[in-house]
Amino acid sequence: MTALTPNSSFSVTLRISLPNRAGMLAQVTQAIATAGGSLGKIDLLSQTLTTLEREVHIDASSTEHAEQVVQAVRAVPEIKILGVEDRTFDLHRGGKIAVVGKLNIHSASDLAMAYTPGVGRVSTAIAQNPDSVYDLTIKRNTVGIVTDGSAVLGLGNIGPEAALPVMEGKAMLFKQFGGLDAFPICLATQDVDQIVETVVNLAPVFGGFNLEDISAPRCFEIETKLRQRLNMPIFHDDQHGTAIVVLAALLNALKLVHKSLAEAKIVLNGAGAAGIAIVQLLKEAGAANIVICDRAGIISRDRDDLTPQKQALAVEARGSLADAIAGADVFVGVSSKDALSVEMVKSMADQAIVFALANPFPEIQPELVTGLVAVMATGRSDYANQINNVLAFPGVFRGALDCRATQITTRMNLAAAEAIATLVSAAELAADCIVPSVFDERVAPAVAAAVQQAARSEGVARH
Amino acid sequence: MTALTPNSSFSVTLRISLPNRAGMLAQVTQAIATAGGSLGKIDLLSQTLTTLEREVHIDASSTEHAEQVVQAVRAVPEIKILGVEDRTFDLHRGGKIAVVGKLNIHSASDLAMAYTPGVGRVSTAIAQNPDSVYDLTIKRNTVGIVTDGSAVLGLGNIGPEAALPVMEGKAMLFKQFGGLDAFPICLATQDVDQIVETVVNLAPVFGGFNLEDISAPRCFEIETKLRQRLNMPIFHDDQHGTAIVVLAALLNALKLVHKSLAEAKIVLNGAGAAGIAIVQLLKEAGAANIVICDRAGIISRDRDDLTPQKQALAVEARGSLADAIAGADVFVGVSSKDALSVEMVKSMADQAIVFALANPFPEIQPELVTGLVAVMATGRSDYANQINNVLAFPGVFRGALDCRATQITTRMNLAAAEAIATLVSAAELAADCIVPSVFDERVAPAVAAAVQQAARSEGVARH
Repeated sequence: MTALTPNSSFSVTLRISLPNRAGMLAQVTQAIATAGGSLGKIDLLSQTLTTLEREVHIDASSTEHAEQVVQAVRAVPEIKILGVEDRTFDLHRGGKIAVVGKLNIHSASDLAMAYTPGVGRVSTAIAQNPDSVYDLTIKRNTVGIVTDGSAVLGLGNIGPEAALPVMEGKAMLFKQFGGLDAFPICLATQDVDQIVETVVNLAPVFGGFNLEDISAPRCFEIETKLRQRLNMPIFHDDQHGTAIVVLAALLNALKLVHKSLAEAKIVLNGAGAAGIAIVQLLKEAGAANIVICDRAGIISRDRDDLTPQKQALAVEARGSLADAIAGADVFVGVSSKDALSVEMVKSMADQAIVFALANPFPEIQPELVTGLVAVMATGRSDYANQINNVLAFPGVFRGALDCRATQITTRMNLAAAEAIATLVSAAELAADCIVPSVFDERVAPAVAAAVQQAARSEGVARH
Repeated sequence: MTALTPNSSFSVTLRISLPNRAGMLAQVTQAIATAGGSLGKIDLLSQTLTTLEREVHIDASSTEHAEQVVQAVRAVPEIKILGVEDRTFDLHRGGKIAVVGKLNIHSASDLAMAYTPGVGRVSTAIAQNPDSVYDLTIKRNTVGIVTDGSAVLGLGNIGPEAALPVMEGKAMLFKQFGGLDAFPICLATQDVDQIVETVVNLAPVFGGFNLEDISAPRCFEIETKLRQRLNMPIFHDDQHGTAIVVLAALLNALKLVHKSLAEAKIVLNGAGAAGIAIVQLLKEAGAANIVICDRAGIISRDRDDLTPQKQALAVEARGSLADAIAGADVFVGVSSKDALSVEMVKSMADQAIVFALANPFPEIQPELVTGLVAVMATGRSDYANQINNVLAFPGVFRGALDCRATQITTRMNLAAAEAIATLVSAAELAADCIVPSVFDERVAPAVAAAVQQAARSEGVARH
C-alpha cells in the first residue's frame, strides 16, 4: 500500500530558532524531506547576529506523520522548536463565517432608515404583499444548510455540534462559488418529523434548503416531506450534488472511450443516499444497464432485506460485487476503502472507467490500476479527476433561487450535469481531465444558467 | 397637534433636470422648504450648456408628506422630475445582512484545510470534546434573533416574513455595536410549544438567543421554558432590554431632581411585556412605590381579569390612570399615542419625570409639556433622551457570551443599567442628557464588562 501524499489537511506551522550560519536551514529542510514532510512557505521572523527565527509550513499525510516530521526537526543539532501550530485547527478557531451588515450605521439618519421607524414601512409593505419578502429581505439569496449530524463526512453519527465546522465550510463554498448567503442549521434532533417541522418553521427567512450529512434512509423521507410542505428548492447534496457530478464526469469519460451511456454496463457499489441518487439520475440520463451492489452483494429482486429505495432499483441478477463487475464498462464506488480489488478491475471490459469515490480513502488506490483502466476518478483533490460536489451545488442553488424555482427537478439536475460536462472542451478532454477544476470560475454561472433554463421550460420558475 | 419633524425614515431621492441658469436650484430648494421637506445631500449628476441633472435627498414626515414635497418640486416651472426613489426601500432591497467567509478559498490547500478532508479532524475533536465547539466554531459569537412576528414594532401581528426586515436590522446592530454575529430566525408558527421545540433544536449553532417582538403573555411562557431547557443566555429584548435602559435613564433623572428611587411614586402605563419587565426590574433596583395601569386602569388586587404576571404586580389602589398619576413623581409609558393628557401631567408632583416611550408616537408630545416637567424622554431619535434598547442588548450579549454565562440573571440586568447610567458624567448630566448617545462607543464595552462581572459574582459564568 502506497503512503498517502502529504496534504494541507495535516499541515503544521513550526516556529524554530536556528544559529545564523550558512547551511543550517538546509539541514532543517533535509530533515523534513527525509521524514516525508512537504515544505510550504518559509518565513524569516527575526534575525540577530547569532540567531534566526523562522516559521515553516509543512504538510504531512496524517497527524502521526506530522508529529514524526516535528521530531525529525527537533533532532537537528542546535535547532530549537519554539512552537508547533496545527494550521487546520488555527484556521477553525472562532469559526469560519461571519454575519455582516451590508451598510454601516453611522448616524441617526441611517438608524431611522435601516431600523425603527423606517423599517416599519418595509415590514408593512411585506405584510400587504407577502411576495415582496423576496425583494426587500435577504430571503432571495439565503440558503439554510440543514443537518442532524447523523452521517458527517466518513465519520458517521457524530452529532450536530461536531457537524458545525463542515456546515460552516459549506457556507463558505456557497458564498465563494455561488455568491449565496448560507447559514448552518445543525439540529439537536434526529427524529424525522421533528426535523421536518423545524425546517418548515424556519422557512420564512430562507430561499431554499440544502440538506447535508443526514443518514439514509431518513434523508429520503425528510427530503420527500419537505418537498411536499415547502414551495422552494430542497436539495440533499449528498444525493443530488454527487449524482450530478458523477453524471457529468461519466458523460465525458464515455466520450473518451467511445462508448454510449445507453449501452455501457455500469456497476455501482454502495447503496446509501449517494448511490441510490446516482443510479436514479444515470437512468434518467439514459443508462439502461446498471447493477447496484451493497455489502451483501448485488441488489437482486430475490433479496428480502431491501428498503423501498433499494427495491425500486433491484435487478434479476444475483451474486457478489465480483460477479457483477465481470465485463463491466464502468465502476462507480460510493462505498468504502479497498472495496475494489485489482482482480476485479482486471475482470472489467476493455477501456474500463473506474470512479472510486469513497472519502477520504478510495475503493482502490489509483496507483494500483495504472495502465489497467482507461479513466480513473476519485473524490480526492490530490489525484486527477476529482469528483467534487462543489462543482454542482453553488450553481444549482444560484440558478434555482434566481428564477425562484418552486422545486429542484430531475431535469434541472440533468441540465446541471450537462453544463459541467460541456465546460471540458474536446481539446481539453483527456483521461486525466474529465471534469473542470473546482476553481474554474465558469462552472457556477454555467450550471446556474442551465438550471434556470430547465426550470423555466418545466414551468417551475416563478420569476 | 404639532406636525412631526421630517426624518430619514421618510426620505426620498429625487432626480431632476433643470435649466443651467442661476437661481433655478434656489427655486427648487424654496419649493421643498415651503412644502416642509428637509433637504439633505444635493449632487450634480451631469451638466451641459443648457441643462443640469441633479440628485436631491429630502426627508419628509410621512409618506403622504413626501408625495406633497415631490408635487411641490414638480410644480416649479421648467423643472423635470426624472425619478423618485424611496431611500428606505432602496436600502432594504436584497436585505441588509450577508454571510461571508472569514477567509477566501483560493487553492486546493485552502480547501483541504477549511473543508474536506481537514475539517474532519476538527469535527472529530468536537465529537471527542463537546465543549470545544465554543473554540472551533462560530457558536461562541453567534446569537439567534427569534421572532414569530406576533408583535412587530407597533404594527402588531404581521407575521414572520414581514418581521424579517426588523430582525435583519437587529442583526446589523448586534454586529456594529457588539461585534456579534446574529442571524434572524422568523418562525412560521405562533404555537408556544412549537416555538420552544424549534429553538431547542437550533441550539447547537448558537451561543444564545434574543427573543424579539413576540406578543404577551406568550413571550413570558416561551422565555421561561427556554431558560429551563437551554443552558445559555435567553433574553427577551422587548422586556429586559427596555427595562435596563428605562432603569438607567430613571437613575439619572432622579439624580437631577434629587429624589430617591425608593421613595419616588412611580406610575407605569401599559402592562405588556415591556411594562411588566420594567416594573420587575425597578423593584429589584429598590423602587417601592409603583402603580401599574393598563387600558382598564390601575392593576388592582380587586380585579378579576388579570393574567398571572399582572396579578403578581397588583396593588391595593383602584381607579383610572388619572387617579393613579395625581402626585406621582415619575410616569413611564409603554402604551400608546396620546394616552397621557396635559391635565394628568399637571397633576403630578413638582419636578415630574415623564418617559413617554410609545413608538413611533409617544403618550404625549414633548412640545405640549415643555416647562411642566423636569425631565422628558421618548423612544424617538428626534427628541433628547432617546430610550433605545440598542444601549443594552449588544453589550449584554457581548458580556454574557464572553464569559459563557449559563443564563442572564436579574443582577446582570441591574449591572447593565448601572453601567449605562454611569457613562453620563456629573458634568454632562442635564434634563436633556440622561442617557448616553446610542453612538457612544463606550456603551457596549462598559455594559459587557459590568454584565460579565455580575455573572462571575453570581456563579453563572463558565469561562
